[in-house]
Amino acid sequence: LQSKLPDVGVSIFSQMTALAQETGAINLAQGFPDYDPPQELLEALARHARTPGHHQYAPMPGLPRLREAIAAQVARLQPDAPAPDPATEITITAGATEALYAVLAAVVRPGDEVVVFEPAYDLYGPAIRLQGGVPRYVRLPSPHFRPDWDAVRRVVSARTRLVMVNTPHNPSGAVFTPEDWDALDKLLAGTNALVLSDEVYEHLVFDSASRMSARQHPALRERSFVLSSFGKTYHATGWKVGYCIAPPSLSTEVRRVHQFLTFAVSTPTQHALADALEADPTDAHARGLAPFYQQKRDQFRTLLATGGWDLLPVPGGYFQLARYDAFSPASDLAFAQYLAREKGVAVVPVSAFYHDGFDEGLVRFCFAKEAATLEAAAARLR
Amino acid sequence: LQSKLPDVGVSIFSQMTALAQETGAINLAQGFPDYDPPQELLEALARHARTPGHHQYAPMPGLPRLREAIAAQVARLQPDAPAPDPATEITITAGATEALYAVLAAVVRPGDEVVVFEPAYDLYGPAIRLQGGVPRYVRLPSPHFRPDWDAVRRVVSARTRLVMVNTPHNPSGAVFTPEDWDALDKLLAGTNALVLSDEVYEHLVFDSASRMSARQHPALRERSFVLSSFGKTYHATGWKVGYCIAPPSLSTEVRRVHQFLTFAVSTPTQHALADALEADPTDAHARGLAPFYQQKRDQFRTLLATGGWDLLPVPGGYFQLARYDAFSPASDLAFAQYLAREKGVAVVPVSAFYHDGFDEGLVRFCFAKEAATLEAAAARLR
Ligand SMILES: CSCCC(=O)C(=O)O
Ligand SMILES: CSCCC(=O)C(=O)O
Repeated sequence: LQSKLPDVGVSIFSQMTALAQETGAINLAQGFPDYDPPQELLEALARHARTPGHHQYAPMPGLPRLREAIAAQVARLQPDAPAPDPATEITITAGATEALYAVLAAVVRPGDEVVVFEPAYDLYGPAIRLQGGVPRYVRLPSPHFRPDWDAVRRVVSARTRLVMVNTPHNPSGAVFTPEDWDALDKLLAGTNALVLSDEVYEHLVFDSASRMSARQHPALRERSFVLSSFGKTYHATGWKVGYCIAPPSLSTEVRRVHQFLTFAVSTPTQHALADALEADPTDAHARGLAPFYQQKRDQFRTLLATGGWDLLPVPGGYFQLARYDAFSPASDLAFAQYLAREKGVAVVPVSAFYHDGFDEGLVRFCFAKEAATLEAAAARLR
Repeated sequence: LQSKLPDVGVSIFSQMTALAQETGAINLAQGFPDYDPPQELLEALARHARTPGHHQYAPMPGLPRLREAIAAQVARLQPDAPAPDPATEITITAGATEALYAVLAAVVRPGDEVVVFEPAYDLYGPAIRLQGGVPRYVRLPSPHFRPDWDAVRRVVSARTRLVMVNTPHNPSGAVFTPEDWDALDKLLAGTNALVLSDEVYEHLVFDSASRMSARQHPALRERSFVLSSFGKTYHATGWKVGYCIAPPSLSTEVRRVHQFLTFAVSTPTQHALADALEADPTDAHARGLAPFYQQKRDQFRTLLATGGWDLLPVPGGYFQLARYDAFSPASDLAFAQYLAREKGVAVVPVSAFYHDGFDEGLVRFCFAKEAATLEAAAARLR
């Protein structure tokens, strides 16, 4: 059997988690918290686990009450955009990962081009290629990782089917500004290109920076699939519930594929998440995430400040990028392995986010960790 | 946006469930039980919902303890086959649906042919076409729905990438015999064709009929992806946990795609299922399913016997097929709509299982229902 993805190995996230387990290193590699979801959410799942009648197929697009709760929250948090219609515009998926794949499978045909900003989450390229699509990569320049719109213009053409955007951005934390959205809109005006906006870190925007979803841009909204996930928002990456918000005609295509990818998502888990949203009509939980993570970012940066690390700015997200100037390893991967084995801290080498292995000597730390974990890691790193 | 699946509408299962809700009909359409999973399994999920540290990403191929428990059970129930290696041969997926899609995405390239026995579950055709594959349909003749191997031979060629098998079969309940497996093996010997064996109803084989997995055929095992699901086995279709067993080289390809389709499956749910398997080293639950469902089948057949229905044989699975001779509707769909609206019982018209809408006047009843539900439905149908 000849592989369709011969160059896809074990993902860097799984590799580094395995290396952490093997070496006893503190795992700041794979992006997940080392704390649990809120206690009320755990209780809600336990309650629904025991509820008769909550164990068979959910409706294909998701439980109506969960979609309604999402629509209500989005309406509250994005008052300048029309509320999404839960019946026709929201689809619950097995994590944002399934939503990403479903969008690609739904809209990309053989030969279609898909614009991808690099560094990029490692599934983008292979998932595009599985549809016969052609990724067109544009590099985001460090240290700010903001798009160079002239460079983007050079890869957009009549063959562009989709532009994939991720804001706040993994691994850099860069956040699209209203000007970025306007630039994208200008570029796509008059084309049939669509936008996939991966916004799983949507609530993690720091320093009162501007925060804007693709949905909040009136022209882009009509061509955008907006993805989010309860994994990041509720510290529950292992629950695997995400969603896609898109206009009805685009949602129809996502659902056509979702129906065959997974059909539906865990019924008791959807009920638990609906409870959590319904119980929080002021969005205290979501609104609390930015200060919560900003404090972790600041703690971690302070701890590393004296360690000889060149810390890049972190406007959002889960991750701190760093360059270690005094050390010149053969590669960022070699450096990451050295850190795990010799210093006892697992990180992700940023070259893993480039299809061509571009390596500018950066590693990624996940700071979605308890204060004590960050302290212990920093002590090892100094 | 031109749809990639323009002919895919809302699935017949969702349609008939919606019609049942709208009309108040008893829902014998979509295949799911109207009873809950075993109480201990519900308690296990509640327990793991409350367990700290069980809420982040599971390993991509599945929790090791769940894969080990599956391997141990398969070894007990299929003592004539080598036990699957949990590390390299078992992959946990978001239901058997994701496993099906992952296998197709992993092995089917544009132009590859895939043999599909009809009637077939409605995802097979569209999911093949999304890979650029070409379904080659072979009809299973009623009332026994056993493959006509000469007919199969006519569609197998050097272009055949995959043969999709479903045993016990949805909707007919037909079960592959050792002779069927031998015939398939003979047909594929010397080719590179692979086999996808969808065995989600594996424990539901009645009347002490032969029961054999593709894994139990030594030659076929090497080219087979064997799929199963806890949804059917534990009355938990809404939990969405399935798995794929395949030789290491084939499992590698499934995992390459699974990594991008969903990455991982609910961690607390996997723990709960591992508990259930570990607590049942004699497989009392799995072994009890055949008598449990055989009793339901017999009850339902007895109840319908006097109603003028021509009941087809049901050697396995969840479903009773029936022809109603005294009535000649325009189509089986019209008949199903009549049954829901006028008689108050929702069923699935079997033409939905044929790509060309072939209609021989059959409808499908799901008998995975409480005795009282079956009685009430039969009373309405008489
Ligand atoms: C699904 S494993 C990767 C998790 C993640 O989002 C990351 O580490 O970037
Ligand atoms: C995923 S909905 C269909 C359920 C099922 O297996 C059937 O009804 O055939």
